[in-house]
Amino acid sequence: MSTTASNRVSRRFLLGALAALPALAATLVGARGARAEIADPLPSWNDGPARQGILGFLRATTDPASKGFVPPEERIATFDQDGTLWVEHPIYTQVVYCLERVPVVVKADPRLAEVEPFSTVLTGDFEQIGKLSMHDLEAIVVATLTGMDVETYAAQVKAWIGEARDHRWKRLYTELAYQPMQEVLALFRANGFKTFIVTGGGQDFVRVYSQRVYGVPPEQVVGSALGTKFGYDAASRPVLIKEPKLLLNDDKAGKPEGIHFAIGRRPQAAFGNSTGDREMLEYVKAGAGARLGMLVLHDDASREYAYGPALGLPETRVGSFPQALYDEAKRDDWFVVSMKNDWKRIFAFGD
Amino acid sequence: MSTTASNRVSRRFLLGALAALPALAATLVGARGARAEIADPLPSWNDGPARQGILGFLRATTDPASKGFVPPEERIATFDQDGTLWVEHPIYTQVVYCLERVPVVVKADPRLAEVEPFSTVLTGDFEQIGKLSMHDLEAIVVATLTGMDVETYAAQVKAWIGEARDHRWKRLYTELAYQPMQEVLALFRANGFKTFIVTGGGQDFVRVYSQRVYGVPPEQVVGSALGTKFGYDAASRPVLIKEPKLLLNDDKAGKPEGIHFAIGRRPQAAFGNSTGDREMLEYVKAGAGARLGMLVLHDDASREYAYGPALGLPETRVGSFPQALYDEAKRDDWFVVSMKNDWKRIFAFGD
Repeated sequence: MSTTASNRVSRRFLLGALAALPALAATLVGARGARAEIADPLPSWNDGPARQGILGFLRATTDPASKGFVPPEERIATFDQDGTLWVEHPIYTQVVYCLERVPVVVKADPRLAEVEPFSTVLTGDFEQIGKLSMHDLEAIVVATLTGMDVETYAAQVKAWIGEARDHRWKRLYTELAYQPMQEVLALFRANGFKTFIVTGGGQDFVRVYSQRVYGVPPEQVVGSALGTKFGYDAASRPVLIKEPKLLLNDDKAGKPEGIHFAIGRRPQAAFGNSTGDREMLEYVKAGAGARLGMLVLHDDASREYAYGPALGLPETRVGSFPQALYDEAKRDDWFVVSMKNDWKRIFAFGD
Repeated sequence: MSTTASNRVSRRFLLGALAALPALAATLVGARGARAEIADPLPSWNDGPARQGILGFLRATTDPASKGFVPPEERIATFDQDGTLWVEHPIYTQVVYCLERVPVVVKADPRLAEVEPFSTVLTGDFEQIGKLSMHDLEAIVVATLTGMDVETYAAQVKAWIGEARDHRWKRLYTELAYQPMQEVLALFRANGFKTFIVTGGGQDFVRVYSQRVYGVPPEQVVGSALGTKFGYDAASRPVLIKEPKLLLNDDKAGKPEGIHFAIGRRPQAAFGNSTGDREMLEYVKAGAGARLGMLVLHDDASREYAYGPALGLPETRVGSFPQALYDEAKRDDWFVVSMKNDWKRIFAFGD
């Protein structure tokens, strides 16, 4: 490069820099704006009734001058998982786990390859698998979730959840946690609430990753639970073996029952997304003082899924949100969160 | 008063004060000693293997340089209640509650006065009451612990526990918490452990006073549990009704099973006092890394009770500590706490 060329470049650079000053100023303002946005506790939420409902509830329960004030040690918030904290469509992640575990089970006991429902699962034909009966699914649950000690099961789930990917985004299932709800969990904890997951899914399954993914420790996961049986292994070491005995069916009326059993007091706030959460929200909202009930409505077919059938969305086997639930929400002042309108983005990895 | 008398008094006061100087000096030394005692995290414990065992375990699990280090979020310690945290003799407090509740139940339904086992309970004849069968006791449990909603039950227990007194010390039952164990609970929490009560007693009962008495929040109480049924009251409000259905029998093998169900991971430390705690201690001690298992032995007939029959103490219906348990403790390095020798005092109110 000649000196002239070099000068010219420098001149261009200087002129360019001067010309950029207003833009720089805008950047600085933007930086301030960004800082303000970092201070926004719910940056992935658009402003609206749902966001205001959350912030208003937190003000009411944490301001000592408020009538709705709740002492910090009594602050409890419960969150459904599937469809509320992460994607549940087209099929619950734990069901995927059970199906993908079948080949391992068959390898250990090859005779199962010729036996239903295992032979159907091994075909990988999802249309046929979708037609399996409840009785068939129970056989798969028993084969994949019971008979081992609790630590072995946890290790199996940990290995699977660390590498299995969903079919649409090709992401780890744990990446399909909703970013706006992660912000709600963090904001509730920052306001002194103990956050619990209350899931129809298996609590032993969710506990494997709840701390890492949601910041919720295993002992704050309440879910459907199979019993265990205490005994001794061949080396006389005490073990807990997972049994095919349903101890808690943590769905519908089982949710408030599970909450009483595991937590022992009525939460002030609850989040769900389907008829499975209805009784939990009714129970929470019926308490005295400030209460928050919130349902996530899946109405964003392009960024996630749209199903219902509230608001004319299609009915599905997973995650029922009928018109009656929508009507009850409106009548009893539960907030309905529109994923399409209330959420700026759905996932941490993108929009 | 004459001037002379006044002078004499002053002189006496001065002389007395001078004479008291050595005593004052002793008081100051004593004050320093007292300050040192406040810094002692276990002031009600005599030094010995049990006290050293607790302190050594806490060093091993909280020192990042130690092989036994446990990350703070994984630190769990479980405590039996009856006979470990408070007095269980001659009869479990919750059984006293049920018996003393019978007159209220009969008042609401006077026909019961003529029906067994209620008529026997109403006599107040403890010898006859002691002969009631398990079937009789079940009828009393059903009549006094079920049929009401969970908030009503909690209010009933709260009222009773706030005024009922034991027969020996004439103290509130909650005053019969062991001061040395209160110090252990506090010390474990100060070292980042979540402290859980794991009791054969009813968890709905213990949860009423666990925060106030032990600093343990309701959601960290695991105990025997009757199921609840979700429904709606006459005013269409959602309620949880206590049902005569045993959901968790949190005793013996039921303790590690209950721990897995409610907590979801193996504690590093466990405290108990009877065969009901054996499987819990086995389970806890069988984990990897630093582990602490501790049994309280009731060998102090004058300050509390002495029963066993380990070490030749008398056998009783409540709180079995047979020789086999003592032998297992010795063999597997559980600490056995002698209330007589290891504890400077038993209760906060006295010695």
